[in-house]
Amino acid sequence: MKPAPVGLVLVSLVSVVALKPFASRTSETPVPYPDGYREWTHVKSALAGATKAASSAGSFQHIYANTKAMAGYRTRAFPEGSVVVFDWLEVRETGGTFAEGPRRQVDVMMKDSTRFAATGGWGFQRFVKDSKSELAPAPRPQQCFACHEQMKKDGLVLSAYRP
Amino acid sequence: MKPAPVGLVLVSLVSVVALKPFASRTSETPVPYPDGYREWTHVKSALAGATKAASSAGSFQHIYANTKAMAGYRTRAFPEGSVVVFDWLEVRETGGTFAEGPRRQVDVMMKDSTRFAATGGWGFQRFVKDSKSELAPAPRPQQCFACHEQMKKDGLVLSAYRP
Repeated sequence: MKPAPVGLVLVSLVSVVALKPFASRTSETPVPYPDGYREWTHVKSALAGATKAASSAGSFQHIYANTKAMAGYRTRAFPEGSVVVFDWLEVRETGGTFAEGPRRQVDVMMKDSTRFAATGGWGFQRFVKDSKSELAPAPRPQQCFACHEQMKKDGLVLSAYRP
Repeated sequence: MKPAPVGLVLVSLVSVVALKPFASRTSETPVPYPDGYREWTHVKSALAGATKAASSAGSFQHIYANTKAMAGYRTRAFPEGSVVVFDWLEVRETGGTFAEGPRRQVDVMMKDSTRFAATGGWGFQRFVKDSKSELAPAPRPQQCFACHEQMKKDGLVLSAYRP
């Protein structure tokens, strides 16, 4: 095989570099949507900001884990392929009872020490509302990692399983 | 085989009758503790009474369903063997965020049209805190049924699956 002309190689490199920031925010994200996560194990829940809002400021926060991540919750050593989902829902208040509203976003973290070596072995991604492909503009995976890294005690997974 | 003396038969019958109300509130309840329900599908959640209480009045309410009950949630025709768990947890408030506290009780309903014909084909039972055998003095199964029967729309299961 003949080597490609230098000009063509340069054009190709420029294209890749120019497109990469865009491509990393589309459905080609390295962290796939966690299909079927609603039937995974429910790790725990919280309700944030309920006092401020029967409104947009409040959020139910449910955490789900796949089978591998559940093994990690038990040992705090998360195996490759562990996936943890942080599911955000709006809150609807009626007479002092807070019910679940529409989904705000789905945060996913996936353990793959090779692919995500730059972010502690975990890939991070936020999906908008119920979309399986639309990615939130923020936080970016590196920002997710920075905060988890700062808050961590015994790993980048901040939650513990509530029996 | 010789028939038992009449006196012995009477004593036995009296014992059974006398013990039955007690036995029905022990671990011999016809609705067993739903072992492993925390790894069943999480149907939905609510937070009751949070405005009154960062305290004992508030409760997280999580609903879980076994595989058969999940089929029922999809069709609203719950097959025999369906089990639905209503899990109550105390609430702990810190800076406007409500976290899960200790378990208050575990309510269980189980579909068995033969055994529970008198209560719409469903057996009901409340277990105290984390106990798998201690049953709450109230509500009694008949009271659970009466309220579900009154509130029902398309069956005795009042909740709907939240995707």
